[in-house]
Amino acid sequence: MSNYLLRAEKVLARINELAAISEQEGAVTRTFGTPEFLRGSALVSGWMKDAGLQVRTDNIGNVRGKLLSKRPGAKTFVIASHIDTVVNAGKFDGPLGVILGLNVIKQLINDKTDLPFHIELIAFSDEEGVRFHTTYLGSKVVAGSFDQSFLDRTDKAGNTLKQVVRAFGGDVESLTKDAIPANEWLGYFEVHIEQGPVLYENKIPVAVVTAIAGQKRVEITFTGVAGHAGTVPMDMRNDALTCAAEFVLAVESFGIENKDRLVATVGNLDLTDPASNVIPGKVVCSLDVRSPDESYLELAYRQIKDICTKISGKRKIELNWNLIQETKPVTCDAGLNDLLKRAIGNSNIELVELVSGAGHDAVPISQIAPATMLFVRCFKGISHNPLENAELADVARAIQVSDEFIKELIKKYK
Amino acid sequence: MSNYLLRAEKVLARINELAAISEQEGAVTRTFGTPEFLRGSALVSGWMKDAGLQVRTDNIGNVRGKLLSKRPGAKTFVIASHIDTVVNAGKFDGPLGVILGLNVIKQLINDKTDLPFHIELIAFSDEEGVRFHTTYLGSKVVAGSFDQSFLDRTDKAGNTLKQVVRAFGGDVESLTKDAIPANEWLGYFEVHIEQGPVLYENKIPVAVVTAIAGQKRVEITFTGVAGHAGTVPMDMRNDALTCAAEFVLAVESFGIENKDRLVATVGNLDLTDPASNVIPGKVVCSLDVRSPDESYLELAYRQIKDICTKISGKRKIELNWNLIQETKPVTCDAGLNDLLKRAIGNSNIELVELVSGAGHDAVPISQIAPATMLFVRCFKGISHNPLENAELADVARAIQVSDEFIKELIKKYK
Repeated sequence: MSNYLLRAEKVLARINELAAISEQEGAVTRTFGTPEFLRGSALVSGWMKDAGLQVRTDNIGNVRGKLLSKRPGAKTFVIASHIDTVVNAGKFDGPLGVILGLNVIKQLINDKTDLPFHIELIAFSDEEGVRFHTTYLGSKVVAGSFDQSFLDRTDKAGNTLKQVVRAFGGDVESLTKDAIPANEWLGYFEVHIEQGPVLYENKIPVAVVTAIAGQKRVEITFTGVAGHAGTVPMDMRNDALTCAAEFVLAVESFGIENKDRLVATVGNLDLTDPASNVIPGKVVCSLDVRSPDESYLELAYRQIKDICTKISGKRKIELNWNLIQETKPVTCDAGLNDLLKRAIGNSNIELVELVSGAGHDAVPISQIAPATMLFVRCFKGISHNPLENAELADVARAIQVSDEFIKELIKKYK
Repeated sequence: MSNYLLRAEKVLARINELAAISEQEGAVTRTFGTPEFLRGSALVSGWMKDAGLQVRTDNIGNVRGKLLSKRPGAKTFVIASHIDTVVNAGKFDGPLGVILGLNVIKQLINDKTDLPFHIELIAFSDEEGVRFHTTYLGSKVVAGSFDQSFLDRTDKAGNTLKQVVRAFGGDVESLTKDAIPANEWLGYFEVHIEQGPVLYENKIPVAVVTAIAGQKRVEITFTGVAGHAGTVPMDMRNDALTCAAEFVLAVESFGIENKDRLVATVGNLDLTDPASNVIPGKVVCSLDVRSPDESYLELAYRQIKDICTKISGKRKIELNWNLIQETKPVTCDAGLNDLLKRAIGNSNIELVELVSGAGHDAVPISQIAPATMLFVRCFKGISHNPLENAELADVARAIQVSDEFIKELIKKYK
């Protein structure tokens, strides 16, 4: 067995050990600040210490381990991902990047590598945002873009974020001190499962991420007139659901026509007071549109809105269109990507460049530092699900590429 | 003001008085067996007694008032509707038929009419079936078709129907004794709001009901594969919602093409674990198809099922089709309808014949006795809603037609 496979076995063993710590028996759930979350953080912190890093937990709960360069004035290169999860999650989304990152750093230590920059490994405390309906709590603190108003948000039980942070020992007054100042950043690298099917379908183990798609999220309300399903003739109806159905199909058609440039999804659709014998009077649905191309995303968004307006107008259904979230596309750093492509070449892997349709901690970090990501193939692209899986051989390839990437980075700054 | 308008005012005043008794403040809700339901029944019982009827409450809670014929061996003609309601109901659905019926009977008493048949006015205790997910509890007991297994059904709080019946003093062992034997029936007449928009749109106050549509109710499950809305390319998706949307539109098209023979509705549509950023993996929806023509209903049902199978097959979505309820169409009695048409003619009202798309107590009764119904125009066809309304003038017309109908019936059996 190759050295990479042996190292991958260790990585997978730790992924399993961390996954066993869960709020739900028989499922993987560790949401921000819960006792199980804190046990998971302590486990990761211990591993970092064992590897020889200088470890601390910052005020938002990020576990941070530093391997220091001896060079005066050295900048910091961050390797990171997150260790919180969604409810009933997979084992790989987040932990893979942290645990694989630690493995790569341990190799540098074992090899007594002379580092021209500090390396900081960070296990971000909250990327999924399940508990407080926020995203990137951990990486926003490190990027210095944490929104203080988040502190007053409450979870389902009524606890504020402030209370939860204080309960685990965080000092909410000191969150800004946990940011890495802009002039100290060298760059950012994150290994993550693809969470999509492209590598799986194309039988390629890893890919360079060139961009993270921008996103617009809309809440759309169609209001017609509810009526009795038995007594209102077909031509006297004002059915909100058939209108919504026409919109759902139009979104699908638009997406397929423009499949190389965007994805468009109606993921939620909710009827008000539904009953099998009632003509639906009101339907609320979501629209999620993503593209790596900012101007195209704007154009597509306006085109889909026009289509929706036409459909509802034709059907005499009242339309309420409410843009509730938008994020701009992020382009990964060209310089770091060149090194990552070289690392993939060094490892004799076919080069695939992918756009990430999902958001990652690299999004807030890219606002302050050069960032790049390596995607790892996952089973059928399934994620946020117990079936989420990455093969041993692919984890080994990702370790190899990451090793090579850090070597290239060291060579560059030597 | 005409005599009919004065009588209609009294009817509306009583409808309002009954509507004021409710489980919910500011709304009309009286579901089977609740304290408010019992107060409502007591009020109606008192009105029947005041009118001079022989009144009793039977074991299922029906309030029954008899006006006896002096003729030996006289049969019984039933005038009835129900006094239970849906949640947040209108005031007219049910009570109109009972209170208007009492007004018509009171007129017969005032006129010292020599009746060739007994008249029994029945306020059925449960037509809507809200509490125990049954329908026609009251009229099935009177028709002798009560299903004893209903007695073990439970409401949300875990009370069985049996317990609820016993709590208000009903004897569940004696339910069969409350049936009117087949050989004692002369016929059945029910006045009810249309609950549809046809009379409203056509500006006609009342209509003869020729048939009550048969119905098939189906629960359909579409199973695809859930996925991340950002990471699964448009051409690699297996979206259960877009499949369901295509079906919803196909049902609408089929219904419009065949609008003179059926109505077809998807009234409920439910996504499993929906989220704006998740491609829907599973959708369950309802289908409700109704037609007065039994063989056509069968044909249309099979055609719609074929369409659904084709759509899901083309999209590689797993289909589960589950027929969960079917009722056969009911044809109203031709002899009674002739009299009712004559009554409408006597009242100088344009004759409109309607099919009822909604079920009524006339459905179980029609299994044992000749039955007919008179529909009364309601505001925009709205029902099961606080906006439900019938105009004073239309109630007056319905009283006039009902008077004329009973006169024609007396003439026939004189």
